[in-house]
Amino acid sequence: MNETPRKNLSKELLESYRVKPGQPVQLGTVDPTATGPFERKKRARAELELLRDELVELQECFYAWDKRSLLIVLQAMDTGGKDGAIEHVMKGTNPQGVEVTSFKVPTAEELSHDYLWRVHKATPARRMIGIFNRSHYEDVLVVRVHSLVPEEVWSQRYEQIREFEELLAANGTVILKFYLHISKDEQARRLQARLDDPNKRWKFAKGDLKERALWDDYMAAYADALNRTSTEDAPWYVVPANHKWYRNLVIMSILVDTLKSLNPTYPDPEEGLDDVVIE
Amino acid sequence: MNETPRKNLSKELLESYRVKPGQPVQLGTVDPTATGPFERKKRARAELELLRDELVELQECFYAWDKRSLLIVLQAMDTGGKDGAIEHVMKGTNPQGVEVTSFKVPTAEELSHDYLWRVHKATPARRMIGIFNRSHYEDVLVVRVHSLVPEEVWSQRYEQIREFEELLAANGTVILKFYLHISKDEQARRLQARLDDPNKRWKFAKGDLKERALWDDYMAAYADALNRTSTEDAPWYVVPANHKWYRNLVIMSILVDTLKSLNPTYPDPEEGLDDVVIE
Repeated sequence: MNETPRKNLSKELLESYRVKPGQPVQLGTVDPTATGPFERKKRARAELELLRDELVELQECFYAWDKRSLLIVLQAMDTGGKDGAIEHVMKGTNPQGVEVTSFKVPTAEELSHDYLWRVHKATPARRMIGIFNRSHYEDVLVVRVHSLVPEEVWSQRYEQIREFEELLAANGTVILKFYLHISKDEQARRLQARLDDPNKRWKFAKGDLKERALWDDYMAAYADALNRTSTEDAPWYVVPANHKWYRNLVIMSILVDTLKSLNPTYPDPEEGLDDVVIE
Repeated sequence: MNETPRKNLSKELLESYRVKPGQPVQLGTVDPTATGPFERKKRARAELELLRDELVELQECFYAWDKRSLLIVLQAMDTGGKDGAIEHVMKGTNPQGVEVTSFKVPTAEELSHDYLWRVHKATPARRMIGIFNRSHYEDVLVVRVHSLVPEEVWSQRYEQIREFEELLAANGTVILKFYLHISKDEQARRLQARLDDPNKRWKFAKGDLKERALWDDYMAAYADALNRTSTEDAPWYVVPANHKWYRNLVIMSILVDTLKSLNPTYPDPEEGLDDVVIE
């Protein structure tokens, strides 16, 4: 595995997936089938494992360092691969420092508060990596597509979300947001695969087809969300996600680069340990 | 790794570590250096990896099954290996289904409630594996040893804890409690190793020596806690923990056996999927 030189995804390539403030992304122009410099999954998977070793070391140090927290937001259409990304990117890390929150349909109690209430409660404490499987972005996605609140309400949320994430960032939370970008055809293949495989059939929900029929509305809502809330402190990345192995590698690469850039260090020992005798 | 026959820890051996109601354990008579049928760590580590594959599959199914939750309570003296056990047993599982809660010195808000308040909030939801790194047992351990509350208060807690855990069990939570049993000598070696290794020195806290001086009081408090709260539904296991590799293997074995005994299955698919066409 180590015999050939490493084939890291370049910073430039990863940067090209970032949604830059002031340069709106058109989702229709981003290729969900892209695989960067990799033609086959074998090399990409080997690279993923090398990066995993780095991630495990970096996470250990980040946790001990205890100075910052890291929040990863995952959004995607149904079958887009949020669960798979969590499993395959985070596998091997120390569960003590990782906390996954899956946001479902809000409960009655959650609905009796503002939409950021349950989200704020779930933000990662210092030293933790928090992962949101769906997030407050549902409040400008499904909520907008289904008109669950009037436009004058959801249209204010982009700014509220920017300010909320700015607050987190100002208090030491590093934020990475990934939109897992699959094509409508790929969703059809994945839904069909669930239907066809008796072991996966339980994952198929007829309700998913209703959402699929609203594909174009969702794409418009996603484009707005990405363009209006990708900031320097809380960037969105559009991750080509038709190929699961490439999706995982892109997320892993950005995660490892981000942790490295923070330069975490192990804490200094207490003073006066030189004379200590253990009896 | 698969060439030699497997060398599972037998049910009888694992059962011998369980604290049986009505048969009080004397911690002084349990050998912390025990390694079961293993003489060296190499074979035990290979066995651990085989069990890890089983754990990963079982966890996936347990999560999808969505019928029960599993709570693992870890208690030990300082350096006893709680953090290491979490890392080495749970590594590889899907972080989405695992939730670790580390109980620290209670906050002002926590202290303004009863001692089980913060614990109840942290119990695992259905489908989750929750791990308590320290727990409500501190309220009959450190609290008792340091007389933080009067004896008439802490002495009532054993029954309260039994009843609390019974409530959880009656509502579908499977409970496993592990006391990681190290010798006082082994603690000295581990503390000394932290002092001697510049990379580990930051882990050394002088306060740990004050607790170490109270070793016998802690052993008495542990013995009472184990004997008075090990029930059929929430058993304590005394895990020989001087050898980290054996400690991990014992916990892993009990965890895998427990998950298997629940017979989790993937859910049935929705009705009426046969006619579905994906457009």
